Amino acid sequence: MQNFLNLCKSAIGEEYVLLDEDQQAPYLQDWRQRARGNALAVLRPADTEQVAQLVKLCATFKIPIVAQGGNTGLVLGSIPDQSGTAVILSLQRLNKIRHIDIANSTATVDAGCLLQQIQIEVDKVDMLFPLSLASEGSCTIGGNLSTNAGGTAVLRYGNARELCLGLEVVTANGEIWNGLRGLRKDNTGYDLRDLFIGAEGTLGIITGAVLKLFPKPSNFATGLISIDSIQHAVDLLSLAKQLCHANLTSFELINHLSLELVHKHFPQYQRIFAKASPFYLLLELSGFGTEEQNTQQIENLISTAMEADLIVDAAIANSISQANNCWALRESISSAQAKEGKNIKHDISLPISAIADFVKDTNICIENAFPGSRMVTFGHLGDGNLHFNVSPPTQSEHKDFLAHQAEINRIVHDKTHQYGGSISAEHGIGALKKQELTRYKSPVELQLMRAIKSAFDPDNIMNPGKIL
Amino acid sequence: MQNFLNLCKSAIGEEYVLLDEDQQAPYLQDWRQRARGNALAVLRPADTEQVAQLVKLCATFKIPIVAQGGNTGLVLGSIPDQSGTAVILSLQRLNKIRHIDIANSTATVDAGCLLQQIQIEVDKVDMLFPLSLASEGSCTIGGNLSTNAGGTAVLRYGNARELCLGLEVVTANGEIWNGLRGLRKDNTGYDLRDLFIGAEGTLGIITGAVLKLFPKPSNFATGLISIDSIQHAVDLLSLAKQLCHANLTSFELINHLSLELVHKHFPQYQRIFAKASPFYLLLELSGFGTEEQNTQQIENLISTAMEADLIVDAAIANSISQANNCWALRESISSAQAKEGKNIKHDISLPISAIADFVKDTNICIENAFPGSRMVTFGHLGDGNLHFNVSPPTQSEHKDFLAHQAEINRIVHDKTHQYGGSISAEHGIGALKKQELTRYKSPVELQLMRAIKSAFDPDNIMNPGKIL
Repeated sequence: MQNFLNLCKSAIGEEYVLLDEDQQAPYLQDWRQRARGNALAVLRPADTEQVAQLVKLCATFKIPIVAQGGNTGLVLGSIPDQSGTAVILSLQRLNKIRHIDIANSTATVDAGCLLQQIQIEVDKVDMLFPLSLASEGSCTIGGNLSTNAGGTAVLRYGNARELCLGLEVVTANGEIWNGLRGLRKDNTGYDLRDLFIGAEGTLGIITGAVLKLFPKPSNFATGLISIDSIQHAVDLLSLAKQLCHANLTSFELINHLSLELVHKHFPQYQRIFAKASPFYLLLELSGFGTEEQNTQQIENLISTAMEADLIVDAAIANSISQANNCWALRESISSAQAKEGKNIKHDISLPISAIADFVKDTNICIENAFPGSRMVTFGHLGDGNLHFNVSPPTQSEHKDFLAHQAEINRIVHDKTHQYGGSISAEHGIGALKKQELTRYKSPVELQLMRAIKSAFDPDNIMNPGKIL
Repeated sequence: MQNFLNLCKSAIGEEYVLLDEDQQAPYLQDWRQRARGNALAVLRPADTEQVAQLVKLCATFKIPIVAQGGNTGLVLGSIPDQSGTAVILSLQRLNKIRHIDIANSTATVDAGCLLQQIQIEVDKVDMLFPLSLASEGSCTIGGNLSTNAGGTAVLRYGNARELCLGLEVVTANGEIWNGLRGLRKDNTGYDLRDLFIGAEGTLGIITGAVLKLFPKPSNFATGLISIDSIQHAVDLLSLAKQLCHANLTSFELINHLSLELVHKHFPQYQRIFAKASPFYLLLELSGFGTEEQNTQQIENLISTAMEADLIVDAAIANSISQANNCWALRESISSAQAKEGKNIKHDISLPISAIADFVKDTNICIENAFPGSRMVTFGHLGDGNLHFNVSPPTQSEHKDFLAHQAEINRIVHDKTHQYGGSISAEHGIGALKKQELTRYKSPVELQLMRAIKSAFDPDNIMNPGKIL
């Protein structure tokens, strides 16, 4: 083992092989403070060549490798187990934007670039990289790709997978695959790119990527709408797609309790509607023409929906600060729920046509099993993704309620499966949902996944114990 | 062997096991009449269950299987070799549209549905399935997915891969994987869907799919533009993306010779510009508002481009028949070139920023090696895909020229590779480009592809001799 560590030190420099407990601490702790792993060492290579050298060493010594970006994952995918036998390979020092090609609408970046860093650099050349999520200030693009991150603009621009044209990957035996192609069409063999994307570091380590860029919108129109049922929200989504087509970039659901928790714990944000409603929607249209045209489009949508009796009330932001207030209400839900106390979270997706029935049905099941449970239902309705969280009844002890987490997960995930949905819409599987996966995936699908894993990583050194 | 055939007959009915040479003929001949294979039998199962039964029989008897849709492929991917040891498994009888889900914007279809059939059924519910290509009246969606088909709307809507949410696949051991999920977000393990898409039937047989639908545009604005260089065309593309963003659905390049061949062989089509230009562009904007708004948008683009000296002349179609005339000019290029005589075709893609230099450089190389060669350069410039075809010099014999096919391919493909491009943008590899693949792919990429093939199809019975 000492020999292995010495070889690592020669490969990347002694200061980048972290052995000290304090130095290692931030790499070992998961972001939600639910688990902490142990590591033989934290390795911080400088570039792709060094990543390859380290992986070769690990392959030789059969040392498990946990690749890590910003360590902001929510499913315990980027920390090792507690055995202390694995190394963490941090990509943070691979943080260069290699090239922005304006005519090709692409950016070639190191895997360790922060998502926000990419957004900012691309913005400087008047373009847009549309991936956007709460942790964008600390997550890395390599992590975003390894988990196929989603976020608030999937409705219009797709997941991380759809925003990536090419990859550079270090394979499990330490070879470098240069697939950094900036091509919109390339039918030359199997789609390795999309196999590494979403594989959570279990098949290889993403070290670089070619990302798709888009024209930067010139303005945004933001509206908050109150609505009396999810079915009406789904009908409004169809209408919004018809009337606003590609300009519709966000369509977010907020249930009444979600909004009330925000107002309770963040009184600084302005209340929009005097009258309560069971659900609210946050809509955003990206405009490429004048601000007036964009406002007209959202006004037209709202008046058409009013006439069709789809919506109860609506408010259009008249200023950037009003728009920011709407977004703050949406983005503070998780924090507000956390301030209210511990709760049980689900990251699910459903066919949009099934969402209304799913919510009704599942709410009844939870109410029957755990009367008084408070449903904090919100999320990216436009792409079928709900954060379907459950808070304890007001009068009950949080820790007593949390003891029922497995039962509540079972109700929600069984119902999700029954309605044709996914038990992990955008967070991945990691170690947290590994057991769940075997419940909901067919044997044939699991067998195909295992065949890929064995083919790419026969010694099982790439992030072992995750996904499969 | 007789035993195998008898078991096939019991599985799907005697009339659907074609042994007769005349009956087999259309399945054996490739679409471009360049090659003809032989088959033990042509099997025509009725549904997914029957496909699975047949694959199980083939697995037991180690009989190679060539899955076939409309047999319109261009790379000899859907016909067997000449040994006569393989069966052709035709998906044509799996031709039901299973379900259209309007609220979810999806259609679930059998693999043997004709592309056009899907377009028409979806149109009836006022939605759009945007995949569109020349053979849409005879190709099947299973073939489109197996080859990750492209076509004229990739710029806006993506390839077949990006238009598919879920698959049903019969694996190499005859099991059915039901991955017919209609979800926009689903991060539960490896991306099997995108691995089967584009695998040309070498990993399994696609029997069904969930397709993404879009709002149907209410009108189209079509323009033909004359332009003096490819660099200006690329600059115009950037401008068009900025000004028209998602409304820009087609951006097609036509060089002077391409257009002249069309006018020579199809005199029924109207000439648009009196004055010749080295290049022309066909633009289409899909409108979701009024026709007037859409016309304004294309007029605004053209006047902005005129002021920037990017374009020489422009004509906007004033009627559907004028728009159809523009499209007929574009879509008759291949036929016109065929009427002119045999020629050497290339289906390449490049980073858009490299196209102008690539064309200049490659034209010089071909002119030096084969003086007088006539370049028929056209294609989907908006997504970097050129059909970079070479016709013989006017005075030379076509067959003498065709003898140099390998040398000309080498020049074009080496240059494509040098400029970061792909030697097969949208047609795939099949048997035709298998050798080429080993020249341009890195050993590590080939090795990863072979690992997948061995893992999924260890006995090599799924379309052997294709891709790898």
